[in-house]
Amino acid sequence: MTVIEQMGASAKKASRFLINAGSSKDDALLAIAKALRANSAEIIKANDIDIENGRNAGLTESLLDRLRLTAERIEGMAVGVEQVANLADPVGRVLDGRTLKNGLKIEKVTVPMGVIGIIYEARPNVTSDAAALCLKAGSAVILRGGKEAINSNKAIANTMRNALAEVGFPEDCIGLIEDTSRQSATELMQLTEYLNVLIPRGGAGLIKSVVNNAKVPVIETGVGNCHLFVDESADIEMAKNIIFNGKTSRPSVCNALETVLIHKNIAEKALPEIKAELDKKNVEIRGCSVVKAILGDCVVEAVEEDFANEFLDYILAVKVVDDIDSALEHIAKYSTGHSECIVTSDYANAEKFTTSVDSAAVYVNASTRFTDGGEFGLGAEIGISTQKLHARGPMGLNELTSSKFIIKGNGQIR
Amino acid sequence: MTVIEQMGASAKKASRFLINAGSSKDDALLAIAKALRANSAEIIKANDIDIENGRNAGLTESLLDRLRLTAERIEGMAVGVEQVANLADPVGRVLDGRTLKNGLKIEKVTVPMGVIGIIYEARPNVTSDAAALCLKAGSAVILRGGKEAINSNKAIANTMRNALAEVGFPEDCIGLIEDTSRQSATELMQLTEYLNVLIPRGGAGLIKSVVNNAKVPVIETGVGNCHLFVDESADIEMAKNIIFNGKTSRPSVCNALETVLIHKNIAEKALPEIKAELDKKNVEIRGCSVVKAILGDCVVEAVEEDFANEFLDYILAVKVVDDIDSALEHIAKYSTGHSECIVTSDYANAEKFTTSVDSAAVYVNASTRFTDGGEFGLGAEIGISTQKLHARGPMGLNELTSSKFIIKGNGQIR
Repeated sequence: MTVIEQMGASAKKASRFLINAGSSKDDALLAIAKALRANSAEIIKANDIDIENGRNAGLTESLLDRLRLTAERIEGMAVGVEQVANLADPVGRVLDGRTLKNGLKIEKVTVPMGVIGIIYEARPNVTSDAAALCLKAGSAVILRGGKEAINSNKAIANTMRNALAEVGFPEDCIGLIEDTSRQSATELMQLTEYLNVLIPRGGAGLIKSVVNNAKVPVIETGVGNCHLFVDESADIEMAKNIIFNGKTSRPSVCNALETVLIHKNIAEKALPEIKAELDKKNVEIRGCSVVKAILGDCVVEAVEEDFANEFLDYILAVKVVDDIDSALEHIAKYSTGHSECIVTSDYANAEKFTTSVDSAAVYVNASTRFTDGGEFGLGAEIGISTQKLHARGPMGLNELTSSKFIIKGNGQIR
Repeated sequence: MTVIEQMGASAKKASRFLINAGSSKDDALLAIAKALRANSAEIIKANDIDIENGRNAGLTESLLDRLRLTAERIEGMAVGVEQVANLADPVGRVLDGRTLKNGLKIEKVTVPMGVIGIIYEARPNVTSDAAALCLKAGSAVILRGGKEAINSNKAIANTMRNALAEVGFPEDCIGLIEDTSRQSATELMQLTEYLNVLIPRGGAGLIKSVVNNAKVPVIETGVGNCHLFVDESADIEMAKNIIFNGKTSRPSVCNALETVLIHKNIAEKALPEIKAELDKKNVEIRGCSVVKAILGDCVVEAVEEDFANEFLDYILAVKVVDDIDSALEHIAKYSTGHSECIVTSDYANAEKFTTSVDSAAVYVNASTRFTDGGEFGLGAEIGISTQKLHARGPMGLNELTSSKFIIKGNGQIR
């Protein structure tokens, strides 16, 4: 058995304990929160090593900032764990049920997934966030974080494991893979005997690697090439505000706006207003030839790639389209199925857009930036699924559970 | 583009038509049923070739019987399609919804999967069954059946495609891969650009090949190493009847019983009665040493493998265990997560068993043979999922859908 196979076997064993753990899971979460606070200085010391190594390796300031832990941020992690403890238990909900003619009573009940794998990048707060959500959902978790955060992650994971032991839980409810080689990630992706689901959290490269290498069931998350269509009947002021918010309130996230499509009959009037707004944040516009003709040389000529990629930056692709059908065609071709929006005052077009666009979240007259578990009122969020199996859009605790049928009889045979 | 990539692209295009097809899907299904009846003779002629080839290839009589189509069986397929037309539309159900403080109205609505792939073996009736369910669920389907049934499948698929065209539907809502090489199956498993989900229907070998080769999301189906535990407090008469039914009513199916575990304090009394019942169908018992000591030399000594495999035959593995915890350990080790049963009159043990056993269907005092979409009242069934993601247990039309969030606002920004 390899180290990771052993972790899988231990996690599976721990997951059997969790099936019957009930509300004691909340005690364990509160113990974890307390331990994070108590070990704050130690965790920061470990984080200092990661920061030092990161600086030497030439990480950008923005990456170093994501990596950095402070007393305040660790307090935030502890509060996050406490909030998860206070959420309703997603396990044991009766989803459906009936009594059959033969007297069999059937219930469909939510149950833990079993063992959940999480692969993520250099954000050490994910270590406690993800572990807390999985624990609350009654599953053991195997974490595989990025190498840049390994010392921080080890300190956080050990803190959580010790807290589990103190309240009589198996430590292996939470496991951290300490080997940060590419090989260890691949091994986790193929741990079919032990892993019930794998959730990658990170950029397009990570997601692609998981899709190509995984043999365990995967929930794809996160890549968002989000579109907004300004319909002929749009309120230009509203469109301008939603576009500005979608593009500039936080360009690095997956629900940020990447492409604006605009109806040809409103383009000439609306584009200069939109441009003026975006200029406040120096957003670069990459436009089709019609956009360029309207806005002039300040617009960069868009190439095919500009419509296909997530910029995650102060850059926006803009294209003039003939009508809503052309907009739908464009979206069907380039969308990653995350979030799309129509700005319109036309009832039929609003309905057509929401029905026809095949994305996790489809908006009428609101910013794509709302695609978020917290904003949607789902409580904490483990990620945003862009696939269609199991969960789609923001995933909360409920999406971390499976279900089973329980059938009670008194001797029925078929 | 390869042939299969082209089929994927065509299916994806057809799936966009289906998103808006609404209740006209039922007209298409009725047209398909009518066409199956009208083309019955032609389909049987194609089937004759498969039967002839199968006989020459030395297929067993039972396989030839699965492969054979008669006017009666084709009528059954047509009736099956009509029944699907009469089911409620699984698309457009509002699963959840709320209005947020900022006035955004959020709904979670069921939507089609998109393109569904089905890989199956030599049962030509699956061709129309699966296609009808996928069509009703608003998805295009790409079928890849076994080579033994290829002539039958082509005749059935062409019949269905022509019927679609007659009612103005894209023919490519239903596609059949005519190349039955292993390579074509692998290519379908990796068609990530077009396939939203792949459902294999067949034996353990097929399922394993899909898990190992697939890059698209998969729903594993079917392998059932089903257990029954006779608790100390069991009604022996009831246990005997449920075991006989589970093992002998249809040994070749996935919900048939494969292993009986029996509490040591009831074994001596119960085993001879159970054995006498099973003798009526000449069931071979492979028992542990204690079973052998009780029942004598008529029992074959069980080896490890007997507890791990599906017999799918008139063979039953039997083991005496110390208590319910030993039974739970055994099940956790050997179960494939399909269906397990406890026969008991003890409340606490019934609750412990249903909570602790991690399978799609967990029974108290009833036969595992009930694990079936029709028996559970789910309408038609596309398969029985033994994985924990998306769907678990019998999958009906609802499990063939995904969902999306629709968010309606009046200019909200974040």
